[in-house]
Amino acid sequence: MPSLPDPLIVIAPDSFKGSLAAGQVAAAIAAGIQRALPGATIRQRPMADGGEGTIDAMLAAGGQRTGIEVRGAHGAARIATVALLAGDRAVIESAEIVGITDPAGMACPVAQRSTTGLGDAIKALLDLGVREIFVGLGGSSTNDGGAGLLHGLGLRLLDAQGRDIPPTPAALPQLAAIDASQLDPRLASTRLVAMCDVTNPLTGPLGATAVFGPQKGVQAQDVDAIDAALAGYDRLLAPALGRHAVDAAGAGAAGGLGYALLMLGAQMRPGADIVADCVDLDGALAGADWLITGEGRSDVQTLSGKAPLIACQRAHACGVPASLLSGAIDPAALPALGTHFTGCFSLAPGPITVEQAMANASALLSDAAEQMARLRFTGTHPLEHGRPRQAGEGLH
Amino acid sequence: MPSLPDPLIVIAPDSFKGSLAAGQVAAAIAAGIQRALPGATIRQRPMADGGEGTIDAMLAAGGQRTGIEVRGAHGAARIATVALLAGDRAVIESAEIVGITDPAGMACPVAQRSTTGLGDAIKALLDLGVREIFVGLGGSSTNDGGAGLLHGLGLRLLDAQGRDIPPTPAALPQLAAIDASQLDPRLASTRLVAMCDVTNPLTGPLGATAVFGPQKGVQAQDVDAIDAALAGYDRLLAPALGRHAVDAAGAGAAGGLGYALLMLGAQMRPGADIVADCVDLDGALAGADWLITGEGRSDVQTLSGKAPLIACQRAHACGVPASLLSGAIDPAALPALGTHFTGCFSLAPGPITVEQAMANASALLSDAAEQMARLRFTGTHPLEHGRPRQAGEGLH
Repeated sequence: MPSLPDPLIVIAPDSFKGSLAAGQVAAAIAAGIQRALPGATIRQRPMADGGEGTIDAMLAAGGQRTGIEVRGAHGAARIATVALLAGDRAVIESAEIVGITDPAGMACPVAQRSTTGLGDAIKALLDLGVREIFVGLGGSSTNDGGAGLLHGLGLRLLDAQGRDIPPTPAALPQLAAIDASQLDPRLASTRLVAMCDVTNPLTGPLGATAVFGPQKGVQAQDVDAIDAALAGYDRLLAPALGRHAVDAAGAGAAGGLGYALLMLGAQMRPGADIVADCVDLDGALAGADWLITGEGRSDVQTLSGKAPLIACQRAHACGVPASLLSGAIDPAALPALGTHFTGCFSLAPGPITVEQAMANASALLSDAAEQMARLRFTGTHPLEHGRPRQAGEGLH
Repeated sequence: MPSLPDPLIVIAPDSFKGSLAAGQVAAAIAAGIQRALPGATIRQRPMADGGEGTIDAMLAAGGQRTGIEVRGAHGAARIATVALLAGDRAVIESAEIVGITDPAGMACPVAQRSTTGLGDAIKALLDLGVREIFVGLGGSSTNDGGAGLLHGLGLRLLDAQGRDIPPTPAALPQLAAIDASQLDPRLASTRLVAMCDVTNPLTGPLGATAVFGPQKGVQAQDVDAIDAALAGYDRLLAPALGRHAVDAAGAGAAGGLGYALLMLGAQMRPGADIVADCVDLDGALAGADWLITGEGRSDVQTLSGKAPLIACQRAHACGVPASLLSGAIDPAALPALGTHFTGCFSLAPGPITVEQAMANASALLSDAAEQMARLRFTGTHPLEHGRPRQAGEGLH
């Protein structure tokens, strides 16, 4: 039997939130594959979907990290990390500027939080000569319809007396007029790309406030009022900017940041698709035999454009099978996941607590990846490395 | 690309103790594989290792179940199930006659428990014309050095005054003489095969009492006295039967039942090897592409002749790769298990309690087997059934 070439394997997981960054996940999986298949060629392409970790993932392909001063969700100045990429491009993360894991922002009531810092960041990048900005929308703590972002870029929000009001959910009910005359003129020649994998509109029962508001601290009894304020804001903004986006897919992302970006003419794409392009996942997949992806927990949401699905789709387009290795797999989602992934596996080696799994995630990932690689690529005996199994080979 | 034949898959797991019988495990795995590979040919060969479930596993190949009257570990009469196989062969289980899961036997102190019921069973089978008897040694509650078995077959145990004493650990210190003249003469023309996968001697620090006594209820302070009583018993039995077995591998199995059987000239073999022969596992493996085996929990003990290891060895001898799917895999044992199995997997889909895993074992097994079958046998897309992956196939 001729020996077949050692396999080429691409590892493109998302982070395991609360446990490992995507780069750590990829490294752990690589270590396990190396144990099973010492001759394998491994290409690590850690992924992200526009939330926390997006800057890290995109910088893996080159570029530089820099700190810029912005206002946090609570309005106080802070330094946020952004990434400057080749070709006058840059990446900013809502999670980094107005993140739901930022204690200072979260200490402020959601009605007072604003995305002004996103406007600050875009302005600073324009000052640096950036011409294309990717905005990660995941992980925000805000629900201001993106009024802050527009305000940070020069939009004036006025009450009935012509006085400026702050770009917060609490103040928007007083909004009576919008002055867009001082909006940064450089925006017209800037390409904005929103990294978004939800399809919610800005308002209504599937809107930002009703669906995502509660997890940010919006009280049930306040949902209607805030939703109505956002609808009123749109009624004034649409004529002011000459665009319509209130019911567009993704307008409701990041508390309405999606809406504000759409109103500036932004393109909206799944974050993981942008990351995949940035790290040239397709190039890595050329000639590959297998892709492993994964995330902290896989469920039906995974199929709504999350990083593992995007990685899988890219793999299939290149004729490469894709398997899933996550912290947990929701058994109820397996029938759906199984139509995409060539095997869905968890790192759990048996009954284990969430705490144990998270504390040992790296070692357990290596173990699981090693077993998966053996099952996929070894022949009759598990130590026949790189010798793939062919159906019907046995004793026929 | 030509379509390759649908795979032929052999499923040969042990039981998941406390959760599913081996046949249920095999059926659950088969259901999962069928979902992934509807065209696959599946051969189910549930396994056992001489403990509980051995009779069921061996009857799968034909034969009949019958009830015979025996004395339980506590001495009271009870009906035990035995299996009569073709060719004047039969199977008895220590677990069925003096089982550690039998509440009546366990209610009696270990010093009073005896294996007389094994002798009763063998005698009854000889009365039925059986010429070869397989004795499963796993799962016993006794520590009598097999004195009960010999007593049940006619051996007399006598004290210094020439009075009969009972064949129990409590009475053996009074043993002063042995009368083997009334031992059943048919034993000379009967083939006894002990199903055993431990190598412990009868006595000493690695002996039956020191190693297995405590889990049967032997108190730490009684170990030495019982061990000494068994040594004294051997000093009288060896000349009486003209055999030496006290330090033979397996003599310490089942509280010394192994020793008593060896003293009757029994052959000793791993139980799973005997089951494998009985169910013609080798025949099932002819032309097979894959074997899946498993057990409730896999650890380094698995490699001491447990059913999954035996199934794996049989598979390799037939040129068939073997993968492990168990309730839990001890991560510390993975490096050793990985030299045998083409992938070791757990049914856990993520963090889960032992109780949840056991309560849902069947569904979780099906899910895991489905994923494993996809990873092993499907091509670029998981729904390309029966299309195996070849290393280097991709875009080369």
